[in-house]
Amino acid sequence: MKFTLHKTDTETKARAGTLQTGRGNIETPIFMPVGTQGSVKSISQEDLDQQIKAQIILANTYHIFLRPGLEVINKAGGIHQFINWNKPMLTDSGGYQVFSLSEIRKIKEEGVSFRSHLDGSKIFFSPEIATDIQRTIGADIFMAFDECPPYPCEYKYAKESMHLTHRWLQRCIKRFNETEPLYGVNQSLFPIVQGSVYKDLRIDSAKFIADQNMDGNAIGGLSVGEPHEQMYEMTELVCEHLPSDKPRYLMGVGTPENLLECISLGIDMFDCVLPTRNARHGLIFTIEGIINLKNEKWKYDYSSVDSQFTPNYSKAYLKHLIKCNEMLGATIASKQNLSFYLWLMKEARTHILAGDFLAWKKGILPIIMRKL
Amino acid sequence: MKFTLHKTDTETKARAGTLQTGRGNIETPIFMPVGTQGSVKSISQEDLDQQIKAQIILANTYHIFLRPGLEVINKAGGIHQFINWNKPMLTDSGGYQVFSLSEIRKIKEEGVSFRSHLDGSKIFFSPEIATDIQRTIGADIFMAFDECPPYPCEYKYAKESMHLTHRWLQRCIKRFNETEPLYGVNQSLFPIVQGSVYKDLRIDSAKFIADQNMDGNAIGGLSVGEPHEQMYEMTELVCEHLPSDKPRYLMGVGTPENLLECISLGIDMFDCVLPTRNARHGLIFTIEGIINLKNEKWKYDYSSVDSQFTPNYSKAYLKHLIKCNEMLGATIASKQNLSFYLWLMKEARTHILAGDFLAWKKGILPIIMRKL
Repeated sequence: MKFTLHKTDTETKARAGTLQTGRGNIETPIFMPVGTQGSVKSISQEDLDQQIKAQIILANTYHIFLRPGLEVINKAGGIHQFINWNKPMLTDSGGYQVFSLSEIRKIKEEGVSFRSHLDGSKIFFSPEIATDIQRTIGADIFMAFDECPPYPCEYKYAKESMHLTHRWLQRCIKRFNETEPLYGVNQSLFPIVQGSVYKDLRIDSAKFIADQNMDGNAIGGLSVGEPHEQMYEMTELVCEHLPSDKPRYLMGVGTPENLLECISLGIDMFDCVLPTRNARHGLIFTIEGIINLKNEKWKYDYSSVDSQFTPNYSKAYLKHLIKCNEMLGATIASKQNLSFYLWLMKEARTHILAGDFLAWKKGILPIIMRKL
Repeated sequence: MKFTLHKTDTETKARAGTLQTGRGNIETPIFMPVGTQGSVKSISQEDLDQQIKAQIILANTYHIFLRPGLEVINKAGGIHQFINWNKPMLTDSGGYQVFSLSEIRKIKEEGVSFRSHLDGSKIFFSPEIATDIQRTIGADIFMAFDECPPYPCEYKYAKESMHLTHRWLQRCIKRFNETEPLYGVNQSLFPIVQGSVYKDLRIDSAKFIADQNMDGNAIGGLSVGEPHEQMYEMTELVCEHLPSDKPRYLMGVGTPENLLECISLGIDMFDCVLPTRNARHGLIFTIEGIINLKNEKWKYDYSSVDSQFTPNYSKAYLKHLIKCNEMLGATIASKQNLSFYLWLMKEARTHILAGDFLAWKKGILPIIMRKL
């Protein structure tokens, strides 16, 4: 993996780069649609590629581990073959789901014991196991196994948790270095900065992560309930301590506004379920503003959902489909929201390269965030 | 509307024709995908047109009447405009849903009082109201308001119900003749033969319906639980008494085998939720046979779902998606099944025109109906 920085903005810390992977290039800043169980909900791989212009998608290790299971993925020749997606992919480590979905869990130095949210069966994940699983899944980028502390979190717990995450990281890297990719394409392991909302911890963690000298670095444990200002503050602080010649990935963020603000702070990569989840609930992002289809005002509005990305279907029709829980509603809305997100990243990149990112951001934010 | 019969098979009663409507031609025999609430479940209109090659689709009057309601449809300029589908459409009369979905209903000479299955509100449908509603929806073909008796049904009830359906038909035709299409495109009203499984009633009904001299004729009240042999017997009998120069539509049928057998008996048009409903439950029709994806044997089968219609996704992946209830599973499976149905109709037509329909049917039925 190679990251080329084409330009760093002079008025902000925004960057435009290219991340070269074994399955093609990713132009940054980039948003990565989330395909939890090996499918970006309601969207086909053809549409992801051709209409939405996704350059990289995610899958969740925890979900894939449970269903279809590693043997199915391995015998398929990896996740790309299994789902028929030949562009880059990223898997999380399973850590986040272990902490968010499993009610019964026990954290020890060795790893985490927990029960499947599907059938209650006992599972044990460790840094080595999470690394092996992600070798088997075969994504181009995979994540270190970390503990993601909740918000709010006491300083003492956040500090101990961060140190555990660091020790686990070293075990992940050791296992990573001792093993090879299974399907003939290189994989990169990204470590994750933790430290909750405590500045000193975030700085310590960023320095520790930077010292590992991996292909890219991630920021975890944000967008978990803290105020946006605190998220921005931590992101800015961490970016200052992460190497500028490696891509920076802010996990689980966020709204279009969050993305533009965090690009300003030096972030290159994002993922979030928000555009697809909001779509299924009728909240639509467009180049003219936000449409809440639950509002009765759209009932007789026969204009296009969005002239650029969804010219063929009207707001009235999409409102009807979503109200009736018709699957086509989720599909149309999700395609719209993801197309908008990918367009926004492309525009941001264009303006970073052109040198007018800040002015563009100031102009477009009030437009795309207004409620129509 | 004009129906041109190109060929009637000499060994069977199969026919190949062309139905000209104000929104384009329909080549018969044809299968019509069901878009209950203005959407063929999980399928976009683009895919219906370009991949599935649907020539005409259905919508259900009862469902559209409830949601989004007639005002939304009328202000849109009709159902085609509303859903963005510019090829022919057909609406049922609402009668079937009144009898199948509504628990509380009261049938009188004037019409049927019933309660919405959504919110329990009181509704009254009559032949005149059903005709007016279908004028407002604006489908190219619409159906007479009938009573669809259950199976089994006593002779006395079936006879009285049939006569009620006939009286209602005359009121539908009167209202139809007194009104005009609302959106500048001609509409045709098809009457419906009833009579349960009683030969004399079916003959009486077919003669009565034939005498109305409408653009096409339908057979209702079959595929409601009776044995297949009885369905075939009634269909054959009715076809003998329906004019050969008008299209014949068998409502709510059926499996691929049912379709080929009923084509043999002289049917030109079919609709059924079976291909899409089965798809969502993992029952897949292919050119090589039927795949039940619930079966564990497909877990590691990475071959294409179907080399012709779904070359890009494997059986193992589709099994996984359907098991996890991922919407993409319903979409892939429904596209496969509908593509197969439309292909089967096109093949049937080709072989009717070529004069070898019977031999082709005998050869293909054991292949497409075998369990893989």
